[in-house]
Amino acid sequence: MTQLDTEASRTRLSSQAIDLRSDTVTVPDERMRSAMAQAVVGDDVYGEDATVNQLQAEAAELMGFEAGLFMPSGTMTNQVAIAVHTQRGQEVIVPEGAHVYEWELGMMATFSGVVPRFVPAPAGVPAPESVRAGVRRSIHQSPTGLIVLENTHNKAGGTVVPLEVIHGVREVANSEGIPLHLDGARVMNAAVALGVPLAEITRPFDSVSLCLSKGLGAPVGSVLVGSREFIGRAHRYRKMMGGGMRQAGMLAAAGLLALREGPARLTHDHRRARELAQALVNAGFSVDLSSVQTNMVYATVPGAQARVDAWSAQGVKANALGPDTVRFVLHHQITDEMLTRAIAVLGA
Amino acid sequence: MTQLDTEASRTRLSSQAIDLRSDTVTVPDERMRSAMAQAVVGDDVYGEDATVNQLQAEAAELMGFEAGLFMPSGTMTNQVAIAVHTQRGQEVIVPEGAHVYEWELGMMATFSGVVPRFVPAPAGVPAPESVRAGVRRSIHQSPTGLIVLENTHNKAGGTVVPLEVIHGVREVANSEGIPLHLDGARVMNAAVALGVPLAEITRPFDSVSLCLSKGLGAPVGSVLVGSREFIGRAHRYRKMMGGGMRQAGMLAAAGLLALREGPARLTHDHRRARELAQALVNAGFSVDLSSVQTNMVYATVPGAQARVDAWSAQGVKANALGPDTVRFVLHHQITDEMLTRAIAVLGA
Amino acid sequence: MTQLDTEASRTRLSSQAIDLRSDTVTVPDERMRSAMAQAVVGDDVYGEDATVNQLQAEAAELMGFEAGLFMPSGTMTNQVAIAVHTQRGQEVIVPEGAHVYEWELGMMATFSGVVPRFVPAPAGVPAPESVRAGVRRSIHQSPTGLIVLENTHNKAGGTVVPLEVIHGVREVANSEGIPLHLDGARVMNAAVALGVPLAEITRPFDSVSLCLSKGLGAPVGSVLVGSREFIGRAHRYRKMMGGGMRQAGMLAAAGLLALREGPARLTHDHRRARELAQALVNAGFSVDLSSVQTNMVYATVPGAQARVDAWSAQGVKANALGPDTVRFVLHHQITDEMLTRAIAVLGA
Amino acid sequence: MTQLDTEASRTRLSSQAIDLRSDTVTVPDERMRSAMAQAVVGDDVYGEDATVNQLQAEAAELMGFEAGLFMPSGTMTNQVAIAVHTQRGQEVIVPEGAHVYEWELGMMATFSGVVPRFVPAPAGVPAPESVRAGVRRSIHQSPTGLIVLENTHNKAGGTVVPLEVIHGVREVANSEGIPLHLDGARVMNAAVALGVPLAEITRPFDSVSLCLSKGLGAPVGSVLVGSREFIGRAHRYRKMMGGGMRQAGMLAAAGLLALREGPARLTHDHRRARELAQALVNAGFSVDLSSVQTNMVYATVPGAQARVDAWSAQGVKANALGPDTVRFVLHHQITDEMLTRAIAVLGA
Repeated sequence: MTQLDTEASRTRLSSQAIDLRSDTVTVPDERMRSAMAQAVVGDDVYGEDATVNQLQAEAAELMGFEAGLFMPSGTMTNQVAIAVHTQRGQEVIVPEGAHVYEWELGMMATFSGVVPRFVPAPAGVPAPESVRAGVRRSIHQSPTGLIVLENTHNKAGGTVVPLEVIHGVREVANSEGIPLHLDGARVMNAAVALGVPLAEITRPFDSVSLCLSKGLGAPVGSVLVGSREFIGRAHRYRKMMGGGMRQAGMLAAAGLLALREGPARLTHDHRRARELAQALVNAGFSVDLSSVQTNMVYATVPGAQARVDAWSAQGVKANALGPDTVRFVLHHQITDEMLTRAIAVLGA
Repeated sequence: MTQLDTEASRTRLSSQAIDLRSDTVTVPDERMRSAMAQAVVGDDVYGEDATVNQLQAEAAELMGFEAGLFMPSGTMTNQVAIAVHTQRGQEVIVPEGAHVYEWELGMMATFSGVVPRFVPAPAGVPAPESVRAGVRRSIHQSPTGLIVLENTHNKAGGTVVPLEVIHGVREVANSEGIPLHLDGARVMNAAVALGVPLAEITRPFDSVSLCLSKGLGAPVGSVLVGSREFIGRAHRYRKMMGGGMRQAGMLAAAGLLALREGPARLTHDHRRARELAQALVNAGFSVDLSSVQTNMVYATVPGAQARVDAWSAQGVKANALGPDTVRFVLHHQITDEMLTRAIAVLGA
Repeated sequence: MTQLDTEASRTRLSSQAIDLRSDTVTVPDERMRSAMAQAVVGDDVYGEDATVNQLQAEAAELMGFEAGLFMPSGTMTNQVAIAVHTQRGQEVIVPEGAHVYEWELGMMATFSGVVPRFVPAPAGVPAPESVRAGVRRSIHQSPTGLIVLENTHNKAGGTVVPLEVIHGVREVANSEGIPLHLDGARVMNAAVALGVPLAEITRPFDSVSLCLSKGLGAPVGSVLVGSREFIGRAHRYRKMMGGGMRQAGMLAAAGLLALREGPARLTHDHRRARELAQALVNAGFSVDLSSVQTNMVYATVPGAQARVDAWSAQGVKANALGPDTVRFVLHHQITDEMLTRAIAVLGA
Repeated sequence: MTQLDTEASRTRLSSQAIDLRSDTVTVPDERMRSAMAQAVVGDDVYGEDATVNQLQAEAAELMGFEAGLFMPSGTMTNQVAIAVHTQRGQEVIVPEGAHVYEWELGMMATFSGVVPRFVPAPAGVPAPESVRAGVRRSIHQSPTGLIVLENTHNKAGGTVVPLEVIHGVREVANSEGIPLHLDGARVMNAAVALGVPLAEITRPFDSVSLCLSKGLGAPVGSVLVGSREFIGRAHRYRKMMGGGMRQAGMLAAAGLLALREGPARLTHDHRRARELAQALVNAGFSVDLSSVQTNMVYATVPGAQARVDAWSAQGVKANALGPDTVRFVLHHQITDEMLTRAIAVLGA
């Protein structure tokens, strides 16, 4: 690279937006692109893509399950899990604000024919006794077919569901004979925040959905894990939803790298989120610091959309999620230097 | 009737249970049975049952609509309305505790593929601005396809949604371009409580479901009313759900009598409900008297099921709807004398 | 009744249409109306309607099953059965022209999420080996969840599925581990035609749907029978579809009379169908006499709708089911005298 | 590469299976991998992936439509199209053996709530008058909501639907007011076979689904094209099914290459298919040569699975699609030399 090129590159960098809208916006770096370009692939509809098979096996082992299934999105892994666990007309217990309801566009109803039963979830964490109170048994009501937790809980601010709550809800599930699914799109963030191995969080569940394209940094894809029998049944629903891909190994190669190398970077995302939160408080915005547990910051920002637009014009992107709510999400392509610049813009 | 028969009859009467579980438990009296036995009938699947046609026309006119459709239950009239108004994957705004969600077993999901969006409804009455806040427009979310109100609101205690709230929600519906359905299973009770003609309550809606087999006293059936075009589309969904009945005119004959003569009796049900509520308070139970607006009384009764069982053994039936909640419902087959006896048992 | 009234009544009678469109058009006679008017009823949603319970028990026993469930239509009994037996995304093997597909408006798809897999059914009778060939097992295809037979087969002309075919299909169902449902809307006609007790036809199935409002003569209703466990699960789906009726006992009273007294009349319907078929042949219409096995006659009639309209103007109603197909259905309210008059019109 | 390596490589090549199971089994070559590795990407859920946008625009223009939408599979593009065009409970007219029914696992029922209405399709080609006869209008039946053609028709042998049939069916669609969708998974093969520009085949339709991962050679993905309004509505259903991918640009880069360079190779596939068909006939197998119109050969092979297994042991893979049916599919990674070897094995 010539010096001019380097200059140009720097200019480009400094003029490039600092994108804090989501941890889904990361783009594959050279190393990941190279891994993708060299991936061994096959027709996964025939089960012959070695890289996909490797990813599924690693993800399953990491979370303490027998088998895994790769899909193009977290919506699909969650909705396939709901379909496998439930029968038409049942209720699915979800914490308030659950992604499977708020952002998955009624798929639980349209595909699986089930309705949500919300339980209170202060800071994204439902009390086990609330879950138990949400179970329906009367023949005049829709019976409960599934309990879903979300860890970390996106809408509550990336908050962590503690192990004792997981165990408490597991006991409810056991005593009521109801399966338990984890929307673990960002469960790796929870493991890092709790300082425990991932499997310690995931094993109490009957199935777990994990996103590779959020904080872990892969471009596309999620993995659903469960028992061999569960995954066998999940295959049919994945195919129905159009998730049977052919030479998906190139995506899986990126997923493998994300799974192996992504977790180590999350600590930094979490530290930076706390720094950003404090900076926002210093700048006069209201932030519930107790909810800044992982890589997200929700701030109260009057006239959210207008402010977000103004910041965007200055090179810092964020998401206005309500009339006075703005979400900032840290990820591995936000460096300390970029954070400093972002804070300068936001605090101005 | 001989004197002995009369004696026997009286004995039977006094030993018979006083059934306050619901206003659905009434049985047709001689007059209604006679009307049913003499009904002119035809094959309604061919649209040839004159009595059904008469009922549909009268119900539509009474509520200020072009057309009506008779069905075997209120669940079916509500769920057909939801199907006509919505597309798969949309959200339906409902007040908390709505019957279409709580007691219709996920049919909105299984059949129509839609999910509920709950809005707060203190005493069963959602604020129009809450309804507006529940509307979804983002392409990342499930769009709102329908707004439902329930008047009177069963789970909130048979409470009445006032006209100004109806008009406020109508304005939201207009400005957002979303249809508005009324679950009016007991809307006649609302009209009586408000002292206004039924149509004043129902006309702001795009469709209304009215039950004939609750306070109005028919054995079976509900009517859905709307525009001629709406009812035309409702026919197909009724048929799909298995609601196409053949010589339904005998049920419709009872429905016509209920529609014509039932309303006059509701005033007494409401007065008796207030008397019962006051008696329960006097007996030491907690009752929110402000919610006793029509024919229902919800009382806080610790150990509800055990108490209900004990009362039942003494000839008074009620419904334990929760661990410490009991519901009493007045209807035209509870006389003042029976109420006095019930109060004696409940207050003992 | 004065003499004039009697005259008027006679005139009316002779000018009244002879309705051969369907066996669903019969209207309750005085005896049935009286039974309905005197029926003991209760709230069937609470399981307290003694007449409904009696009907369900008698129907179950008659067909050799543990339990029964009363519903407002044959569409509902069939579709509830499909829902209980299947999972989303499965295939349901049906004979070509099956009522559950042709006349139940896609309910199998909308409610149960299943698709039909047609098997050839010459004269309404599928060969067991055709059924076996229709079974799907590949993981790339939708697995078979249910096999349905229809006896008598409506669209094929009210034709009878013989016992050996039933047993052959039962063996397929056993060896493949797939449940077997009978759409027995007119299975009583089959029993009469075969000269065997009803249970001999119905017992090989896992569930049977029987219509009371066709040849048997009740105004409204069908019964679904199966094991106690099956019927327990059917309750939930009936409620979802809006088939939970309150004081349904008055309908059940008519149903009981139909069940007890209707079968004896079917022999006459069948004889009259053969007479009509022969008369149509004599009049120059093409009729496949071998398909006239019960109470229906399908005739080839060029310009069907125009002919049907012309006959209707002369007091004889029939159904144009295609551009050159007319269906005539015999029932107990067509007397020999009426048939003679009808033949005079049709043969003119 | 050392000489030994080269030797090893050649050995590997000659021992490698010649995979004729499907044209989905191709793997990206170096050029395609390189294009993928260098792709400009963004978050497509926000519409910011430039390569995806480019692919969508090119595909739409190539087929004569306003807009396109990239998805992970042909099942998804077809099923999204069905969802956009239909309402619950409708019928979808499809040619016998249509992929949307045979290989998409009931998704049309589970998601869209619609049932198939089959029309005869000799050699995969339905007569326009058959399509018209399949339209349903009676209020007693499920109304027709969509007509689907498949070109080329997979199950019929990769057969081509001629332009005059397309125009005839378009007229039916117009006169009946029913939308028309093309399952064009292999429509590029049809264009090559007919020797016409692709748009001449696709423009008569309201929407077209095109697979990039079959003969065109991309690893993953399909594109749905239609009007801007149609694609706008398709977005929501894609998201519901879990087809919203993040940095999908790497897949789209391969798709672009396939779209630009794939068509030129299909002529060779078609020629080789004819050669293979003739060789199979010479070897004594029965092949309907008139159906060998594009890149597929269906041969009658008694004991199909055993033969396929034996051939596989000798390095030639094919698909046993029935007890005596074997399918061979040509694609750009089968060279003339490989075909010669395959023929040697198959004819032995």
